[in-house]
Amino acid sequence: MDFKTEFVPLTIQPQEIEDKSFQIITEELGEHSFSDDQYRVVQRVIHASADFELGRSLVFHPQAMEAGITAIRNGENIVADVQMVQVGISKDRLRKYGGDVHVYISDPDVMEEAKRLNTTRAIVSMRKALKETSGGIYAIGNAPTALLELIRLVKGGYAKPSLIIGMPVGFVSAAESKDELRKLDIPFITNIGRKGGSTVVVAAVNALSLLADKRG
Amino acid sequence: MDFKTEFVPLTIQPQEIEDKSFQIITEELGEHSFSDDQYRVVQRVIHASADFELGRSLVFHPQAMEAGITAIRNGENIVADVQMVQVGISKDRLRKYGGDVHVYISDPDVMEEAKRLNTTRAIVSMRKALKETSGGIYAIGNAPTALLELIRLVKGGYAKPSLIIGMPVGFVSAAESKDELRKLDIPFITNIGRKGGSTVVVAAVNALSLLADKRG
Repeated sequence: MDFKTEFVPLTIQPQEIEDKSFQIITEELGEHSFSDDQYRVVQRVIHASADFELGRSLVFHPQAMEAGITAIRNGENIVADVQMVQVGISKDRLRKYGGDVHVYISDPDVMEEAKRLNTTRAIVSMRKALKETSGGIYAIGNAPTALLELIRLVKGGYAKPSLIIGMPVGFVSAAESKDELRKLDIPFITNIGRKGGSTVVVAAVNALSLLADKRG
Repeated sequence: MDFKTEFVPLTIQPQEIEDKSFQIITEELGEHSFSDDQYRVVQRVIHASADFELGRSLVFHPQAMEAGITAIRNGENIVADVQMVQVGISKDRLRKYGGDVHVYISDPDVMEEAKRLNTTRAIVSMRKALKETSGGIYAIGNAPTALLELIRLVKGGYAKPSLIIGMPVGFVSAAESKDELRKLDIPFITNIGRKGGSTVVVAAVNALSLLADKRG
């Protein structure tokens, strides 16, 4: 095959594409009341979804940004609800501070326990995470049941995450789980409504680790 | 920790949640002109994004559904542009027919070659995929440059995928790459506009493999 020989070099580099994208987002979003740090998250969420409605629907607990940045700089781990979130998160910036990303939903013991209890793997994976993680950032993009279980454990005094990023997507329980999250007085980043998903949660975590890294 | 003892069994099971979600989607979407098979893809895309606008923007080449289902049943491989797509796709139904999901973007030789050519890893990964895969379904959710390169290779006669699922998200080149894809006369599934992403491409592939499996 000789298709390589026809190769036309890129006229626009990845960093330029990102810069241009962020410029378009800032122009089209217009006025907003997010802080500068919060806006970094909003911008990356819109970048990952091309959805301004979703970006505008983000809600931040007043301590969320500081708590997330501090957790990353302290090398706390990130718990992802599903593997798509786990693989999407940039690991290099976390590992620099000693942190990593863990996901428990496909662990054999989690699968067995879920079967035994007739419940979801997502729920059991949150309980396992709690045993393995102190503090930590919980990044939930897929499973409302994971988020609801985590909220229940926080309310019961069993869990004290440094930050919960809860943006599960869906038509049953997703919006409701986020409504419950917004009632907690612990650091959270979430959004209002049905939208969300793994890619936007990944975007939020990556925005946080970039901010953490900038503090130098 | 005694949080397990407080466990309240689920009142709604995952399958019920999915059924209820699909019912809501069908009700809220209302009239449409998708075929029954196409609608399975649309439904799962909306389920994964909670975005009716995105669902309605899907465009199918007339042979897309048949080509995709046949490719899966023939055990052809799926090439993902990024790892998030790779991990999200349900493998069991593919492996039943001898197929699997491959992703090349983080291969050391791809990274090296991209550096040498001053181009994106996404582009080089498509060239590697072409050498390793005959036919196949290309599932592109993230990188417009991967989709543009694949289109270039198809036009040049170097590539003949069985199906291209191209729904990269973004503000620079994403919509344009999909406009180019819709001009090809080979089977494709895409959408109009900036939206898309790994989760919706995964949803489309999983819808296809469910249809393939139903043929029994």
